[in-house]
Amino acid sequence: MNILEVIKEQITSVKEKTDTFIKNIDIEKWNVSPEILETNMNWQIGHLILANYLHGIASISGVNEQVRERINMQDFKKFYGPGSLPTMHLDEKPNNEGLLDLYEFIFDLIFIEINKINMEELNSETSIPNPIAKTKYEALMTLIKHQSWHNGQIAILDRVIRNQ
Amino acid sequence: MNILEVIKEQITSVKEKTDTFIKNIDIEKWNVSPEILETNMNWQIGHLILANYLHGIASISGVNEQVRERINMQDFKKFYGPGSLPTMHLDEKPNNEGLLDLYEFIFDLIFIEINKINMEELNSETSIPNPIAKTKYEALMTLIKHQSWHNGQIAILDRVIRNQ
Repeated sequence: MNILEVIKEQITSVKEKTDTFIKNIDIEKWNVSPEILETNMNWQIGHLILANYLHGIASISGVNEQVRERINMQDFKKFYGPGSLPTMHLDEKPNNEGLLDLYEFIFDLIFIEINKINMEELNSETSIPNPIAKTKYEALMTLIKHQSWHNGQIAILDRVIRNQ
Repeated sequence: MNILEVIKEQITSVKEKTDTFIKNIDIEKWNVSPEILETNMNWQIGHLILANYLHGIASISGVNEQVRERINMQDFKKFYGPGSLPTMHLDEKPNNEGLLDLYEFIFDLIFIEINKINMEELNSETSIPNPIAKTKYEALMTLIKHQSWHNGQIAILDRVIRNQ
C-alpha cells in the first residue's frame, strides 16, 4: 500500500463514521442546537462540505467550476466558515436534504481528483493557498483529521439529542 | 516519506493539538463536567492513555511491563474504558498531574515501539487482539483518528469551561 492508497482508505474510514451519524440523527433534528452545546448537524455537515472542498479539491486541483456552480462560496463561508456561529442565519441556510446531496457530491469529486495525482504531485504545493497545509499531502491529511475531529463533536451532539 | 514516517508525523500532529488544550485548560478545572456535556478533561486524558496504550503499544509489541507497573489496568478500564461515565468514580481516579505524566510516558513508549518495527511488520496482525484493528498499521491509524475525535470533543469542553 502506498501513501495515496492510505489517504483514500482513511478518507473512506472517517466518512463512514460520519455516515453512521447521518443515518442515526433524524434529518428533522438537524437544526436543533442543544443548549450549552450550541452546535447542530446542519452546521457540522455544512462546515465539513466547506473544509473538504478546500482540503480535498481546491488544494489538489484548484478552484472547481462544478462546485462553484452548485455552491455560493460567499454564503457558505458566512454560514459555515471559520468563526461562523452554528445558531446564526438559520433561515438563510441550505436545507438539510440539499446539504446532504452536496456533501456526497464533494466526496465523489475528492476521489476523482485524488485518482488523478501521483506520488510526486502529492508532495507539491497546494493548488490554491491553504492556511493549514503547504502540500497536497498535508491538505489531505488535514481533511482526515478534521473530519474525525468533527465526528467526535457529532457524537456528543447525537447523545445529547437522543437524551432530550 | 514512507508510511511509518507518515504515521509518526500524524501522531505528533494530533498530540500537538491535544497539548494546546492541555496548556490552555487550567489543570484545576480538569474535573469540571459541564452540565449537558457530561465530560471532563480528566476523563478525556485518561481515556486517551488507555486507548493509546492499546493502539500504540500493546497492539505493536504486546503487553508492556513498564506500563503495567505504573497503570492498574482494571482500575483504568473501570474509570476510562468503553462505557465508563466521566462523572463517576471521581474520588478514586488518578489526580490530574499524575495523569499528565502517564500521558507523556505512553507517547514516549509509542515512539520507541514504532521505531522498532519495519514496513512488513506494520502489515502484520496486532500483537494482542484489538477489537477495532486487525493489523499494526490499522491500530496506529486508529490511534490518530481516535485522538483527533477526542480533540474535537475537548475543543467543545474548552469553549464551555471558558464561557462558564
